[in-house]
Amino acid sequence: MASDAKRRQKDPSEILLDRSFHHSAMAKLKDSEKRGRPDLVHVTLLNVTGTPLYLEGMVQVFVHTYDDEVLEIAEKTRIPKNYLRFRGLMEKVLVERPKQGLIKVHSMGVKELARTISADEVIGLSVQGMMTSLEELAKSVTGAKRPSVIVGGFPHGHFSPGTLSVVDQLVRIDARPLEAHVVASRVIYEVEKAKAGSTIKSAS
Amino acid sequence: MASDAKRRQKDPSEILLDRSFHHSAMAKLKDSEKRGRPDLVHVTLLNVTGTPLYLEGMVQVFVHTYDDEVLEIAEKTRIPKNYLRFRGLMEKVLVERPKQGLIKVHSMGVKELARTISADEVIGLSVQGMMTSLEELAKSVTGAKRPSVIVGGFPHGHFSPGTLSVVDQLVRIDARPLEAHVVASRVIYEVEKAKAGSTIKSAS
Repeated sequence: MASDAKRRQKDPSEILLDRSFHHSAMAKLKDSEKRGRPDLVHVTLLNVTGTPLYLEGMVQVFVHTYDDEVLEIAEKTRIPKNYLRFRGLMEKVLVERPKQGLIKVHSMGVKELARTISADEVIGLSVQGMMTSLEELAKSVTGAKRPSVIVGGFPHGHFSPGTLSVVDQLVRIDARPLEAHVVASRVIYEVEKAKAGSTIKSAS
Repeated sequence: MASDAKRRQKDPSEILLDRSFHHSAMAKLKDSEKRGRPDLVHVTLLNVTGTPLYLEGMVQVFVHTYDDEVLEIAEKTRIPKNYLRFRGLMEKVLVERPKQGLIKVHSMGVKELARTISADEVIGLSVQGMMTSLEELAKSVTGAKRPSVIVGGFPHGHFSPGTLSVVDQLVRIDARPLEAHVVASRVIYEVEKAKAGSTIKSAS
């Protein structure tokens, strides 16, 4: 990791931990299976921010990191499609910690975040959850005032006890474990459909 | 572009054209708006290959490039999530042109590809197409024997006349232009739902 930082002319404290480049350095890290995958976060963000629901300003996006940093992504932010540009942007905001702009950084855990945004129905997606259909899940989301959906941006492992403590419903949407970006796009798409359905209903 | 190749110790003919790094070199390139975006292809492939439908071996994936190379992705291939690894893999297969393995490379246009795979219903997704619902689109797909869906892996521009000539239905699925990866995931998800629906129907 130090050599990667050096090659990139950065301080090791200022680069994203990335298993593709820091595999051996991560071997002895605690919870290593839940860390070092900014690529998964990137693809998930691209899936969320490319949807009509987000483009209409109806989805608020937060990224919560392992060490309790929360990145607040403003409405209609264009996430760089190129991973190296994305990584550069993430490293910049995590060093500069802006309090305004397209991406703001706050030191807080999931509990504090849920309180801050007044989440009234927190739905966690997990293979440990109860099997539910995406249509049912979308109904829960559209039926709440301030619904919040949590998707784990890591390839293995489960939500921490702190995260689980804020979850009202822990659900799974498929018989097999699905990747975060697939889950996120399906949830948003079904919410769009549920919203469109309820609009037609209330208009008739 | 030459300096990027040099830095990466590669021949310029052996690296992927990537607008993030070769922007100025692309200025005078013909059809430049449709080229140099392997990042879009990457995210789209991740979205397709992460779906249950693909994981069950029911989606065959091809990437057709601007200069008529066709990459045939085998069933259950794990596309690297990290962009740099993906780029390395693409550069490798485009140089080595394997005729077997997880990714095979063929020199052919879209017409020849459609003929080779005996596509009997080719659906092109384009803002120039007729507005249709994803449910209707999914019905067309599940109703055909060898359906084929084409999504443009470029941010602007339209299908070439050659591509359009094989398209049976040119459709759009949203009032706004959506990105390739969003379109691909939605189509696959609705096809999954249509298939599940028709299975339940035929079982009852």
